[in-house]
Amino acid sequence: MFDRSTGGALTPLSVVIDQVLGPVRALIEGRPTLMFGTNSYLGLNFEESCVEAATEALRRFGAGSTASRVASGNQKLHVDLEKAVAALYGRSDAIVFSTGFMANLGAIGGLVREGDAIALDAHCHASIFDACRLSGAKVATFRHNDAADLQRVMAASGVAPARTLVVTEGVYSVLGDVADLPAIVAVTRGSGAVLLVDEAHSLGLYGAHARGVAEAQGVEDDVDVIVGTFSKSVGVVGGYCVTSDRAFRTLRFAARPYLYTASLPPPVVAAAHRAIDLIRDDASRRDKAWRNARAFHAGLVALGLPPSAPPGPVGAVRMPGIKPGLDMWRALLTAGVYVNMLIPPATPNGEVVLRYSVSAAHEPEDIETALAVIGRSARAVGIPLREPAPAGA
Amino acid sequence: MFDRSTGGALTPLSVVIDQVLGPVRALIEGRPTLMFGTNSYLGLNFEESCVEAATEALRRFGAGSTASRVASGNQKLHVDLEKAVAALYGRSDAIVFSTGFMANLGAIGGLVREGDAIALDAHCHASIFDACRLSGAKVATFRHNDAADLQRVMAASGVAPARTLVVTEGVYSVLGDVADLPAIVAVTRGSGAVLLVDEAHSLGLYGAHARGVAEAQGVEDDVDVIVGTFSKSVGVVGGYCVTSDRAFRTLRFAARPYLYTASLPPPVVAAAHRAIDLIRDDASRRDKAWRNARAFHAGLVALGLPPSAPPGPVGAVRMPGIKPGLDMWRALLTAGVYVNMLIPPATPNGEVVLRYSVSAAHEPEDIETALAVIGRSARAVGIPLREPAPAGA
Repeated sequence: MFDRSTGGALTPLSVVIDQVLGPVRALIEGRPTLMFGTNSYLGLNFEESCVEAATEALRRFGAGSTASRVASGNQKLHVDLEKAVAALYGRSDAIVFSTGFMANLGAIGGLVREGDAIALDAHCHASIFDACRLSGAKVATFRHNDAADLQRVMAASGVAPARTLVVTEGVYSVLGDVADLPAIVAVTRGSGAVLLVDEAHSLGLYGAHARGVAEAQGVEDDVDVIVGTFSKSVGVVGGYCVTSDRAFRTLRFAARPYLYTASLPPPVVAAAHRAIDLIRDDASRRDKAWRNARAFHAGLVALGLPPSAPPGPVGAVRMPGIKPGLDMWRALLTAGVYVNMLIPPATPNGEVVLRYSVSAAHEPEDIETALAVIGRSARAVGIPLREPAPAGA
Repeated sequence: MFDRSTGGALTPLSVVIDQVLGPVRALIEGRPTLMFGTNSYLGLNFEESCVEAATEALRRFGAGSTASRVASGNQKLHVDLEKAVAALYGRSDAIVFSTGFMANLGAIGGLVREGDAIALDAHCHASIFDACRLSGAKVATFRHNDAADLQRVMAASGVAPARTLVVTEGVYSVLGDVADLPAIVAVTRGSGAVLLVDEAHSLGLYGAHARGVAEAQGVEDDVDVIVGTFSKSVGVVGGYCVTSDRAFRTLRFAARPYLYTASLPPPVVAAAHRAIDLIRDDASRRDKAWRNARAFHAGLVALGLPPSAPPGPVGAVRMPGIKPGLDMWRALLTAGVYVNMLIPPATPNGEVVLRYSVSAAHEPEDIETALAVIGRSARAVGIPLREPAPAGA
């Protein structure tokens, strides 16, 4: 991929973080670097009380459980974390998986059978596509965020809605755009179809209780299953699925990536639990993340590099091609600002983008510094700048 | 499954470990319990220097990386762990995945394409079956440990050997039997087929350098790819694949469960690295695990409950049915000895077994205590006992 044409120069796939100095600071090739490409939206991977909880769990429960949840890997820590996740969502059941990828494999694979159908948004994450493929169901994609196309796909599938699983995300993590769940729900509601929403990038950031986009858009009651991850805002690794539908209680005994994998290590579980508590109890990080996200978005617009979606913790700026994108990415990194460069197949529509993320751990001066570097680098590299829209437009 | 018929009584799927007291000790339902059903074969999940390494990494690198290896989740810690794994095996390349399950998904999925064929041992782990299914290749199983049947399957597949991946394990983790790799290799050698061996339950235990069964049987040069896990002898979670074949260097950019998942948290990586170093440098735990395994096996034979395979860190005793097996399992747990009860589809051939594991963390008196409890429980429950073979037979 990148590596073939760059003769050993630094590439997005070969960057090594030599030292991590905090949730948004690292040492890369000897340079202190401002990180605008992590998924630590709330900075919780360095939150003192999460690190303390992990340290305590290491001492008391060991470095790992060495067994599956259905063998000797089912510790009270795991059960308590599931209760905390279910309580956060106000739902009856939660299942914790060892990665977010495996949460999608397990939830989707456990819910459908051969003969069932799945309709998924075309921009869904690779783990959702792999889960659909592995499930053996009849799989069709609908056009991104297009409820009318979902309706068309469901009508054309030849499978009853009651045997159809519909899958979307809350926030799409490449471009940072948000699902139009009210429109999706208008199609699925009353049809008998099961709606699953992956809130991987929205947990902790959207909605009055920080539960995600379904909450923010007021459609939680119409979402049957929510999948999420502990590897973004929660700051560790792992995934979950949560529901109140008793029919899904068998999921725990049907999901092979749950049954046949070692459970999450105690320090990971303890840090995740503390982070979930903080997400529930303390809105200050979320508020700060949003202030930073709006300021960064406004700054990019002012620079003539408008992101492809409204303000949010994830965003992307389109590049005019791989060569200028790579030049821009490298100029930023050399100047001490890390963002993600993404190309197909990781991006939709064949786009080349610089993808960024903004965190509660950023300070206002970090935003200013990064924007100044971005402006200078874009001019140096010759990225075309768009005239900023007039104020108030 | 179990839960339906037991009216709330303790079942193998509902056991919760209230407190973990060490690698082979736990509190279950208020009772101190000797654990003979973990996969902590070397006790490294409580090894002081591993816990120290994890604690230090927590402080310095945070509780999680929050990003994929191809984004900001590629820390020097991860690169160094891969070097340590490659060096342990004396091979040029290692890739670390976030779980062992995902190592199989990634390695197998990254190696084959639609139009290729896979021949796998019928007793392979669920993650291998799922990986084969997800790969899109033409999949056929051969009879367990039957090289002649492998040859038949390869001949009948209609796919050239050079486009065929053969998959076995080192130790099969339900019954504890060991692959006959020399016989397998006699079929694959020179055929052009790629041979992948999953050493999940053998790393740290078999072979002069503790690399697994391929090393112990002297056929490492004929095994192209080795997959393994950090969640058994290494004591944390994660997986790896290791090879010296340069053709597999693209695997890192083809394996979706590598590209699209958050990397392992720093404390997990640090503990795994320390454990790999201990496995390389210190044979004392391995030797002790084997002494314990032989003593436990001999004790079971003497009790009239011969395991279904020769001595090893994993073993299984056949039960005459689900009801007596469950009675026996419950009697053991009530008397303070935890083993795994396994039934189909987790077991081959429709068998019901009590599966046990033996660890370097067991003391000789733990073995004696457990054997005494097993003997008493078998008589109390009415498990048929076999006359022990005469000494020297």
